[in-house]
Amino acid sequence: MEADPLSTTFAALADPTRRAILARLMEGEASVTELAEPFDMSLPGISKHLKVLERAGLISRSRDAQRRPCRIEGKPLAAASEWLERYRQVWEGNFQRLDALLDKLKSQDKIDTKTRGVDT
Amino acid sequence: MEADPLSTTFAALADPTRRAILARLMEGEASVTELAEPFDMSLPGISKHLKVLERAGLISRSRDAQRRPCRIEGKPLAAASEWLERYRQVWEGNFQRLDALLDKLKSQDKIDTKTRGVDT
Repeated sequence: MEADPLSTTFAALADPTRRAILARLMEGEASVTELAEPFDMSLPGISKHLKVLERAGLISRSRDAQRRPCRIEGKPLAAASEWLERYRQVWEGNFQRLDALLDKLKSQDKIDTKTRGVDT
Repeated sequence: MEADPLSTTFAALADPTRRAILARLMEGEASVTELAEPFDMSLPGISKHLKVLERAGLISRSRDAQRRPCRIEGKPLAAASEWLERYRQVWEGNFQRLDALLDKLKSQDKIDTKTRGVDT
């Protein structure tokens, strides 16, 4: 079963080494050897991570040189960020669940009725 | 091995059903039965997804009632969004890799030297 693009992106980001590789690529293109260096990881180990990132479209690799440097690609990151953006109101605290709002309106209604009852 | 919080969040988001559950919870709290309905999925199937979301802190479940409604929690979404935000310059196209910038500066330097050579 082929995963949808957003699931593939989130799955690729669900690993600290892969996120560190992307952070490194923000500084510029790098070969597999250069990427393997800071991670104390074997070349096959790094290659495996790069394949996951490449499949997710998060990196691309030039075909010409033997060095085949990797570069970061923004498109899937933009899609992931866009998805999260829809939930901004949840973490910004100005999110009022519909049920909570209805409860509030209902209890407000009761208070109003009572108040009116006392007043008249 | 316990995964870091950001990896746990991204892994939890790497599934279309779990993302749809979060979208549903934006409308208000919901019980497992209510959540299972639109997905044509068994209760144990939904429960499994809810456990992944709960472990990632993306939902919480009230302890009091038998219904135990689920609600969406924003904190991990905020952390994920913050991480992606660092890469905004990549997808906005105003990202200039350091190596590309250095190449440009070097070639600019060569042109300047040549021009000066012709002029004097």
